[in-house]
Amino acid sequence: MNKMDMPYVVGVDVGGQTTKIGVVDMRGQVLAQTVIRTDTYGEVEPYIAELAEAINKVIADADVVGKVRGVGMGIPNGNYYSGEIENAVNLKWGRSGSLPVAKLLTAQMGGIPVALTNDANAAAMGEMTYGAARGMKNFIMITLGTGVGSGIVINGEVVYGHDGFAGELGHVCAVRHNGRHCNCGKSGCLETYASAMGVARTAREWLDLSDEPSSLRSLDNITSKDVYEAAKDGDKLALKIFDFTGTVLGQSFADFIAFSAPEAIVLFGGLARAKDFLREPIERAMNANVLPLWRDKVKIVFSQLKESDAAILGASALAWEL
Amino acid sequence: MNKMDMPYVVGVDVGGQTTKIGVVDMRGQVLAQTVIRTDTYGEVEPYIAELAEAINKVIADADVVGKVRGVGMGIPNGNYYSGEIENAVNLKWGRSGSLPVAKLLTAQMGGIPVALTNDANAAAMGEMTYGAARGMKNFIMITLGTGVGSGIVINGEVVYGHDGFAGELGHVCAVRHNGRHCNCGKSGCLETYASAMGVARTAREWLDLSDEPSSLRSLDNITSKDVYEAAKDGDKLALKIFDFTGTVLGQSFADFIAFSAPEAIVLFGGLARAKDFLREPIERAMNANVLPLWRDKVKIVFSQLKESDAAILGASALAWEL
Repeated sequence: MNKMDMPYVVGVDVGGQTTKIGVVDMRGQVLAQTVIRTDTYGEVEPYIAELAEAINKVIADADVVGKVRGVGMGIPNGNYYSGEIENAVNLKWGRSGSLPVAKLLTAQMGGIPVALTNDANAAAMGEMTYGAARGMKNFIMITLGTGVGSGIVINGEVVYGHDGFAGELGHVCAVRHNGRHCNCGKSGCLETYASAMGVARTAREWLDLSDEPSSLRSLDNITSKDVYEAAKDGDKLALKIFDFTGTVLGQSFADFIAFSAPEAIVLFGGLARAKDFLREPIERAMNANVLPLWRDKVKIVFSQLKESDAAILGASALAWEL
Repeated sequence: MNKMDMPYVVGVDVGGQTTKIGVVDMRGQVLAQTVIRTDTYGEVEPYIAELAEAINKVIADADVVGKVRGVGMGIPNGNYYSGEIENAVNLKWGRSGSLPVAKLLTAQMGGIPVALTNDANAAAMGEMTYGAARGMKNFIMITLGTGVGSGIVINGEVVYGHDGFAGELGHVCAVRHNGRHCNCGKSGCLETYASAMGVARTAREWLDLSDEPSSLRSLDNITSKDVYEAAKDGDKLALKIFDFTGTVLGQSFADFIAFSAPEAIVLFGGLARAKDFLREPIERAMNANVLPLWRDKVKIVFSQLKESDAAILGASALAWEL
């Protein structure tokens, strides 16, 4: 069939607990969607079987049977080149070795093409196809969630590198000496400072280290959301925490710019909601640390995609290239 | 004429003092070469006129008149996209504003196509076309000269970025606090530590700060070459200086790997001659600072191009794509 007769794609966002599935049209409208559990399977095969069934159901719900070009998946540790996931510790059935997820799903669905990549790369594709980076050929997507992820676009294409795993900017070194320990085993990684987790960690550290009054002192288990709410109420310590977080991000962004000279850096994710507190320190630190030729030239852009749809849209964007 | 009938290219390496010109065949043999002065002109036009004459002369010397596909130039501040140089402070006639060097040379030479880029990007092209990176699609070229330059190759193409100036890895931050002042106006830049200039600076600092005996103490104006000679003679301070230099490089390389997941990092330039002293600390620091998935996976490769030919070869490699 001609590609023009297949103007729909399916996006699948695989998280540790749930998997979101949606049918998407060329303008980035989600026509139908559903959710299945990710964590009720110990093996990959029964998960893929239920996933295929759910995909077929949303395709039917959207009334586009026979008009779907392919399936794009955002999945932890997804390798775009091989269509496999490798040692995906967040997936109960994917923890050790390689699993040919794309191939298994294609087989289960009668040959429909499937492409996959990790969620940050999928987010970059989504932003380029439907969002804030439409028309941009060179940008860097930074996802500020529990951790920090990234998807790098150069000449209109996501950078996968020699092995398929390029773009791990959450693990560049932000603090060289006495940096915070990171889950990856290293220390000083950007994501230990500039993620939702990092913001909460900064709050706990600073409350311990000073006597400064703050509404955060009354809380037991401080989250980045608490810090955000406190900042909105004008809490000075909370405001300083965002200033610090933005400064660390901006310093790292300056180095990213020296690498790929992007038109913009696009921010997405739970922590990016604090954009009113992050934008100023990010821009200040970034412009103070770039070469003069890039000063005040690189845009900081916050995602325009609806947060509830963004993961499905990002994954679906992969499928247009199939 | 068919491209197959034009199996030669010209490489032009523009330095502050001299310009080297050579005719190159597909295997990277320099068939004829010459040199003209760069710094005897106050304006661009007479320089271009003499350059065109010199190019025509080497083409005649190599006996390949009518068989040259194009001219590639490596030139400070060269913008691949526009064919212009912008504020090239090292070129007497190119210091302010933009100059359409490629267009001027094409006009002067009766329409022959001309492409240009900066010298580090040209070096990357040369290494990919004729040298240590042949067959590689993803690598990072680092030139260790007076300063530190870089050319980044992703999917077989040099990364130019949104504005044509991507790949300024000499100016990522190596030392965040109390870093050395850099000529670019920032401080802590990689090139203030890991260039020929940086090695000499480390030597002077360390001699001042300690009483450690060293043959370097007897010298007046220490250069990186002096440190290299001392290290070869087993001087302990000199050896420590290279260990430090390699460590700083390796730490930065770990962050570069997180960006583009290259197959290799290729080193070239005067300081790269000290490879016997640099390789071990580079590999140690790099592998200690990358994510586990890249540990012991990314090769450190030293250029295989003959140093006297390398600049011409790099520039010439650009012209094969014309």
